[in-house]
Amino acid sequence: MRAARLHEYTDDMANGLTVEEVDRPEIGSGDGVLVEVEGAGWCQTDNHIVEGMWTDYVDQDLPMTLGHENAGTVVEVGDDVRTVEPGDRVVCHPVQTCGVCRACREGETMYCENQSFNGLTVDGGFADYLLTGERSIVPLPGGVDPVDIAPHADAGITAYHAAKRSVRDLAPGDTAVVIGVGGLGHIGLQCLDAMSAADVVAVDLKESARELATDLGAQLTVDPESEDVAAVVDDFTDGTGAAQVLDFVGADETTALAPDIVAAGGDHQIIGYGGHVHEPAQALVNGEFSFQGNIVGRYTELQELVALVDRGDVELTTSRYDLGDINTVAERLEHGEIDGRAVITP
Amino acid sequence: MRAARLHEYTDDMANGLTVEEVDRPEIGSGDGVLVEVEGAGWCQTDNHIVEGMWTDYVDQDLPMTLGHENAGTVVEVGDDVRTVEPGDRVVCHPVQTCGVCRACREGETMYCENQSFNGLTVDGGFADYLLTGERSIVPLPGGVDPVDIAPHADAGITAYHAAKRSVRDLAPGDTAVVIGVGGLGHIGLQCLDAMSAADVVAVDLKESARELATDLGAQLTVDPESEDVAAVVDDFTDGTGAAQVLDFVGADETTALAPDIVAAGGDHQIIGYGGHVHEPAQALVNGEFSFQGNIVGRYTELQELVALVDRGDVELTTSRYDLGDINTVAERLEHGEIDGRAVITP
Amino acid sequence: MRAARLHEYTDDMANGLTVEEVDRPEIGSGDGVLVEVEGAGWCQTDNHIVEGMWTDYVDQDLPMTLGHENAGTVVEVGDDVRTVEPGDRVVCHPVQTCGVCRACREGETMYCENQSFNGLTVDGGFADYLLTGERSIVPLPGGVDPVDIAPHADAGITAYHAAKRSVRDLAPGDTAVVIGVGGLGHIGLQCLDAMSAADVVAVDLKESARELATDLGAQLTVDPESEDVAAVVDDFTDGTGAAQVLDFVGADETTALAPDIVAAGGDHQIIGYGGHVHEPAQALVNGEFSFQGNIVGRYTELQELVALVDRGDVELTTSRYDLGDINTVAERLEHGEIDGRAVITP
Amino acid sequence: MRAARLHEYTDDMANGLTVEEVDRPEIGSGDGVLVEVEGAGWCQTDNHIVEGMWTDYVDQDLPMTLGHENAGTVVEVGDDVRTVEPGDRVVCHPVQTCGVCRACREGETMYCENQSFNGLTVDGGFADYLLTGERSIVPLPGGVDPVDIAPHADAGITAYHAAKRSVRDLAPGDTAVVIGVGGLGHIGLQCLDAMSAADVVAVDLKESARELATDLGAQLTVDPESEDVAAVVDDFTDGTGAAQVLDFVGADETTALAPDIVAAGGDHQIIGYGGHVHEPAQALVNGEFSFQGNIVGRYTELQELVALVDRGDVELTTSRYDLGDINTVAERLEHGEIDGRAVITP
Repeated sequence: MRAARLHEYTDDMANGLTVEEVDRPEIGSGDGVLVEVEGAGWCQTDNHIVEGMWTDYVDQDLPMTLGHENAGTVVEVGDDVRTVEPGDRVVCHPVQTCGVCRACREGETMYCENQSFNGLTVDGGFADYLLTGERSIVPLPGGVDPVDIAPHADAGITAYHAAKRSVRDLAPGDTAVVIGVGGLGHIGLQCLDAMSAADVVAVDLKESARELATDLGAQLTVDPESEDVAAVVDDFTDGTGAAQVLDFVGADETTALAPDIVAAGGDHQIIGYGGHVHEPAQALVNGEFSFQGNIVGRYTELQELVALVDRGDVELTTSRYDLGDINTVAERLEHGEIDGRAVITP
Repeated sequence: MRAARLHEYTDDMANGLTVEEVDRPEIGSGDGVLVEVEGAGWCQTDNHIVEGMWTDYVDQDLPMTLGHENAGTVVEVGDDVRTVEPGDRVVCHPVQTCGVCRACREGETMYCENQSFNGLTVDGGFADYLLTGERSIVPLPGGVDPVDIAPHADAGITAYHAAKRSVRDLAPGDTAVVIGVGGLGHIGLQCLDAMSAADVVAVDLKESARELATDLGAQLTVDPESEDVAAVVDDFTDGTGAAQVLDFVGADETTALAPDIVAAGGDHQIIGYGGHVHEPAQALVNGEFSFQGNIVGRYTELQELVALVDRGDVELTTSRYDLGDINTVAERLEHGEIDGRAVITP
Repeated sequence: MRAARLHEYTDDMANGLTVEEVDRPEIGSGDGVLVEVEGAGWCQTDNHIVEGMWTDYVDQDLPMTLGHENAGTVVEVGDDVRTVEPGDRVVCHPVQTCGVCRACREGETMYCENQSFNGLTVDGGFADYLLTGERSIVPLPGGVDPVDIAPHADAGITAYHAAKRSVRDLAPGDTAVVIGVGGLGHIGLQCLDAMSAADVVAVDLKESARELATDLGAQLTVDPESEDVAAVVDDFTDGTGAAQVLDFVGADETTALAPDIVAAGGDHQIIGYGGHVHEPAQALVNGEFSFQGNIVGRYTELQELVALVDRGDVELTTSRYDLGDINTVAERLEHGEIDGRAVITP
Repeated sequence: MRAARLHEYTDDMANGLTVEEVDRPEIGSGDGVLVEVEGAGWCQTDNHIVEGMWTDYVDQDLPMTLGHENAGTVVEVGDDVRTVEPGDRVVCHPVQTCGVCRACREGETMYCENQSFNGLTVDGGFADYLLTGERSIVPLPGGVDPVDIAPHADAGITAYHAAKRSVRDLAPGDTAVVIGVGGLGHIGLQCLDAMSAADVVAVDLKESARELATDLGAQLTVDPESEDVAAVVDDFTDGTGAAQVLDFVGADETTALAPDIVAAGGDHQIIGYGGHVHEPAQALVNGEFSFQGNIVGRYTELQELVALVDRGDVELTTSRYDLGDINTVAERLEHGEIDGRAVITP
């Protein structure tokens, strides 16, 4: 089968991956599931992996097939699998988990002590077939297209995860600030709208992104190049600040906004991760806010997101590309030239 | 009456405050309460105020009487006061609040939009008398000595506040790391012990502090100069990390421990605040942990802490000093020469 | 001024209250506020008060002016009032609170130890003027009509309170059952829709109420006379049951549904209260569900509901009546002849 | 092997079970685990099963080996088992779960849609061997005796589960009422003491039970035959009531206490289940309390309880009996003649 593989880390996105023929994977355990990939989303994290940014955090054996946002059709299952069968359409949670460590037992599948992560620590789904397991598969309701839902497997649940965490502390009348209305941000914004009655202020450098934010329910948009974000938030919230900030950028400039825009007792949710947090401890103490990291959503959150998509509460703008165009996609994303979300259709 | 007042910011602790005669304050509103001060704790924050470290965060008019940890006897009350009367022994929450802003309405008195803070924004209690209000007074059970409880008005509730937040996420078998077993830390440790069944690992440079930690219930102590804190925590928790870290130091070195010692989904509670947080956003994302600021506890938390003290669950080592020795106290604390907590007895 | 007063308990709704001339109340404390009543909602609870159903729970001195759902214009304020002034339009939380008991300190104003309740324990607002206090007043945004918002002061916040409690446990894909789509229920349904992405199944005997439920966002409606509610819920939820049930009726028949329709770990929220709960303890244990009582929402919940109304998320169908027609309103409500909510306009 | 089996429902406890020879069970799936039983606790629920009280709630095929509180040594494991091996000492969670339904995914193993319950729906452990699965096994720390820990597999985690739920809402200064200081109650009391700083009022008819409660940390005990429980609680809490009531009896008389002893906003936790709840809906509304059912604790709660036992925070008084004496144990428990907990040692 064909697979797009990383042979060495590089900053040259135009030549990051190699599309080549490899053996189709075989099911080796009772709970194994083989999926014919129909959609495989390309994600900013893929760029980071190509650049080698994850080598400090996980073990990677190159060459490796990338791709962690997959959906398609089950073609084969192991002996113990009971919840799906060949022919079922599914979306694949990117993390394969053991089910018996304490984290799995608590439902915190992202903290599994024995996990593998498609396209990050094991072969992923920029390929004709993906080998995964029953614990990582969510069946799709009729009418949900695998290509459309594929990016939700990572981008979607990451945004959903942060939004779900935020809405717990968002009462009607409260304000949420969404920084970055790109691939993840525009999903997060829709999740906030569906799950809370908070007002949303959306911040983005691009006019098209700000317009999208308005269409998706933001009460106010801010251009950080021409406007003072802190002053706008202060004014919009009568000096109280935003109960929740969802930072889908995670740059030095965006984390630095926290002391000025987060309300006392609120959180600056870190989802994007290009830059750093640099703050005096006293700032966190004085404003009693947090910088809260957000990893990919857990398995049950993918179920919940599929329900949201099925209800029509979250829509995703996708553009489709052939497997052979994968490096072009990587390059365009690097230059901010992709609106919505790119999906490879092997 | 006598009062110890700050006339200008200085790093010279030996000459920070001036003890002088000033007018006794008068009750000007219906809910006013005048307290004869019997105990006034000296706090690391007082050193920070003398140095001018709070000028970026609050407005201060000098000269000002410092002192925010007070207890004593009510001597006069305003017309509308109904819960205390002259002769009652009370401990004074350092923050005076309006009661009608949304934060006060929610019980989040520390976020009051119209607050004043004794000894930080208005005259405090290093004096014979302190003027405060009914909303800031907690009556003492019989048998609780105002001198002993005074430091709880700030040090105590700050430590309690962070501990209370932590225990929500500490199941039996989980580990909490306490960094810094000084004035606040040794209270926090006792609160954890009383309110959870988590194991505690205590980190402190001083041997006497580590011994105190063991006496107060810590399962393990670590000397960060001779031991690798991250390795010890990793070993103690079988690689999982600490569900909660309570950082009573807040130095660059201690906040930098977070990615290596906080468990996935856990929190690094910032209580001390001498240094900075410097972390790549990716570290917070990958470990899904937070840096959570902790301000002074709210009014009802002082009630809860008084209940803990009354039960005998929290004991405080105090040393008593005359008002005239106040600068000596400041200097000794600066040099780490005070064990437990210094209380001025005007 | 005119006031509609209860002189003795009776089941004869046609002659329950007497409209008579009484002295206009006078402000007696610093935080007092006198409101000229423009809208005063009539509530099922008013019928219960007339019948004497509350005598077991509160002390009542007759004669008493009923009316606990009021909005209007401030005409006079006490010396200490700082957040409103004459001319401001406000909605009045029905409970007047002390602000200094522990419950008030925690924001749980409905548990105030020293509370009075308009029209239940002190004179209410079926009158030209209502005397209340600053702690019970929520200013209205421009454009919100006092007559339209009046019923939210009790019916609205009670429904909102139960809905807010429910949405904490409602993930996308979960089901909420709303029993009774009357005055409270149709507000609760809108709150669920605004604050969650759960599916709603609405149960009501009246076809018009079921149609209203569909208009307000219910995914499914059930007629309990012709359909088996438990079977419908079981089918709709694939056997899981409803994560939350909001019972705005509270009759023997509706509470008896709980073991069959509440999901494991879920709650049967009791809001209406005509009947009883009769269940074997074993049923609660086996299904691990609760019967959870719901009282009127607290002060800050009225702020939140006003924000929801201001956003256009909650609309109320009201019909207006003169003060002189008050007993007619009571009688019609008794016979289920009032759709939406009746508001007296003194 | 020997097994104590129920052939037909009866109220005659002296002849409830038959000890007979049956085939030793065989491992039939990859995750199967065969345990040689060393301790098997007898529980009030076993009496209820013998009487047929569970036939309305679960499907039972007689004859069936009872026994759901088991600990012992692993003697054989299936091919996919990775966390235990023969020779390991373990305690067995009574519920065997599928791991792939949504409830299991969320960690709510007690709500597993495909569960079987040892000794209730499948053969249990009043036998020489018990067949279970890896998802139901908690390894024991060295030094914890299987006989001593066996009753924790159901009695223990049920009490722990209710206590854990309660302590979330118990601040220092709050009061918890424990009704029934028997097999479960005396564990629950110790859990409360270890995990909170609330005051405990213990209610029991037996003087020996009240004395045990005092030894285990109760601040006050009440004899409901000679004292008015409601008056005592009212007095002890200054009229506020108990924030949490843990009702280990669940009789008509004990649930009827709720309106008079539960604080506003509090919960009456139903753990025992002999009787009924009979209350006007209005009582729940007026006091805004709940009747909250509590089922057996989930898998991770058994891990937590083992940690508590390992810390020495929970001690259990056990008495040991031969398998042949099992009906005698049943009869004595029926007559309230067993203090602490009876363990069968096959």
